[in-house]
Amino acid sequence: MSYQVAVLAGDGIGPEVMVEARKVLKAVEERFSLDIEYSEYDVGGAAIDKHGCPLPESTLKGCEAADAILFGSVGGPKWEHLPPNDQPERGALLPLRGHFELFCNMRPAKLHGGLEHMSPLRSDISAQGFDVLCVRELTGGIYFGKPKGRQGEGEQEEAFDTMRYSRREVRRIAKIAFEAAQGRRKKVTSVDKANVLACSVLWREVVEEVAKEFPDVELEHIYIDNATMQLLRRPFDFDVMLCSNLFGDIISDEIAMLTGSMGLLSSVSLNSEGFGLYEPAGGSAPDIAGQGIANPIAQILSAALLLRHSLKEEAAAKAIEDAVAKALSDGYLTGELLSADQRDKAKSTREMGDYIAQAV
Amino acid sequence: MSYQVAVLAGDGIGPEVMVEARKVLKAVEERFSLDIEYSEYDVGGAAIDKHGCPLPESTLKGCEAADAILFGSVGGPKWEHLPPNDQPERGALLPLRGHFELFCNMRPAKLHGGLEHMSPLRSDISAQGFDVLCVRELTGGIYFGKPKGRQGEGEQEEAFDTMRYSRREVRRIAKIAFEAAQGRRKKVTSVDKANVLACSVLWREVVEEVAKEFPDVELEHIYIDNATMQLLRRPFDFDVMLCSNLFGDIISDEIAMLTGSMGLLSSVSLNSEGFGLYEPAGGSAPDIAGQGIANPIAQILSAALLLRHSLKEEAAAKAIEDAVAKALSDGYLTGELLSADQRDKAKSTREMGDYIAQAV
Ligand SMILES: CC(C)[C@H](C(=O)O)[C@@H](O)C(=O)O
Ligand SMILES: CC(C)[C@H](C(=O)O)[C@@H](O)C(=O)O
Repeated sequence: MSYQVAVLAGDGIGPEVMVEARKVLKAVEERFSLDIEYSEYDVGGAAIDKHGCPLPESTLKGCEAADAILFGSVGGPKWEHLPPNDQPERGALLPLRGHFELFCNMRPAKLHGGLEHMSPLRSDISAQGFDVLCVRELTGGIYFGKPKGRQGEGEQEEAFDTMRYSRREVRRIAKIAFEAAQGRRKKVTSVDKANVLACSVLWREVVEEVAKEFPDVELEHIYIDNATMQLLRRPFDFDVMLCSNLFGDIISDEIAMLTGSMGLLSSVSLNSEGFGLYEPAGGSAPDIAGQGIANPIAQILSAALLLRHSLKEEAAAKAIEDAVAKALSDGYLTGELLSADQRDKAKSTREMGDYIAQAV
Repeated sequence: MSYQVAVLAGDGIGPEVMVEARKVLKAVEERFSLDIEYSEYDVGGAAIDKHGCPLPESTLKGCEAADAILFGSVGGPKWEHLPPNDQPERGALLPLRGHFELFCNMRPAKLHGGLEHMSPLRSDISAQGFDVLCVRELTGGIYFGKPKGRQGEGEQEEAFDTMRYSRREVRRIAKIAFEAAQGRRKKVTSVDKANVLACSVLWREVVEEVAKEFPDVELEHIYIDNATMQLLRRPFDFDVMLCSNLFGDIISDEIAMLTGSMGLLSSVSLNSEGFGLYEPAGGSAPDIAGQGIANPIAQILSAALLLRHSLKEEAAAKAIEDAVAKALSDGYLTGELLSADQRDKAKSTREMGDYIAQAV
């Protein structure tokens, strides 16, 4: 059996961390005799420079022919002056999500033992650790709802966006959250603003219905404003957080920052056929691009998630995750994870990739 | 000159902290020979129990006849089973904001020297302190935008909300943020999601226009997801944060929690005539209501803000703030601000009120 993977390395540190992810993938392919074919396509700022748009037709076609997309990161100061719609992040990510109906986004954020000092939280809070999975609806809500636009003139000119959710859309993402919770600590916290939004009232109704099918999973509801607060005081009380598109954007970034080590976090965006886009949480980090110091772990873990969710190669996925865990527990770390006085022990992007590939 | 103040104590700890605020107000009235008349009205759960709705006509009429509203807090488990529209928070606060067009909400969050240990942030971050003012648009956006509702049947049934902003609405709140920044550290951070929302694109355009009238104030834009993150790493880099209604709901709660002492924070909601509603940030805290241990400082500081913004009695406002600062620096504190081993030094709600009134 042969798999096709579309590789969209993108901008900033994207290409350099992708090299290491490919290295680790090669190692698992050998160990587990997998046959994966890779095709590289331009995306983001790189695609703007070469083709005039962040998501060229050729890239979209290449992704359509693949079983999954391994995504790097896009964006940078060079393209920031462009109108919002043409910018790399918005112009590449949103159409990809929409085109492939990648409605399910999962962003795990775990505070690794030994890396508590990276968390911006007070030491007595971070000492308790946390492991939160944000399950975010990714193709609905105010991101894609119509109408969206402008009307009127002068000071009366107004802009409008529509938040919109159907029962069907809420149900399918809620199910995934409950299924995920069954394999974890069996708790779903649904984040909404039901005291203000009609969409949230519907959201709550459907989530309650779905909960009945999962009697072993505890369900609680929390308002987005309160969720933002409680995560700061007691992140360890949360297991799976189920969010609409906009609230998931906020919560997933908050929990990522609470770990203090974004270079370790990856995410998956799936459609109902298991086709998915896999990407690091951290962004293109143009400030450190090209210096060989970026942490490739998030990209490497994206590859593991790709093996698990789209290719159903669980053993290979696990092998990568174990190798990453070994690197971390061996104290084999890039500079941003080390305190100032330990900085001379920092490993380069390439050294990290080599070590993890080796461990596989 | 005689002033009229409508007192809406509400539920939970509302009535007991209001007693202390009135005590402190009495002290400044004597010291500065002010003539303030108070009229008390039912609101929230208390009003549901007595009149069948959280904001009775009599309360609204009373507020209309007043120069300002001193608000306690509303809500509690007793009314949580009610449909969202009828619940105390939603059914009292939103109509009050809408009816009096209280478009400008200001929520300051400052980490007080000596109370750094209360912050959930890592000690090296909280040691740097912070002092952020959230200026939130309060009568527009997705809270009040039409259409809002439901349509369709079965799994296709959908709910929708409309986010809507006019140039005029953005301009008037942006101006207030820049004016506030002039009296502070001269920096405005405008929070939006211009990579996704049409409203945010308009928001950015208008904020840029307003910024030209304030050349002495620095302006930066930040996406809501990134704002939520950066506040955790470097809260001290923010001065005034200018937010739409929904984003301000989230940011103001996040910065409040970052101080770790919600019992010290109050907020003001103003209309264009200077009429305002003044309330503590913390909520009705039903779990500690009636025990005489709630911190009355937020309510007392609300009274100070009322004197400043609606009655224009700056000296009296300052006198209250100085008295509160004295209580804090004297270590005269309620239990939630003390570490476990100091808890026996905790002052009661009444003792706090007496001490601050005395200091005035
Ligand atoms: C780039 C932007 C459109 C995107 C989003 O808001 O979804 C990003 O913040 C993310 O979370 O993937
Ligand atoms: C009670 C609720 C409707 C309200 C809001 O969302 O504005 C509250 O959270 C607030 O911030 O004052």
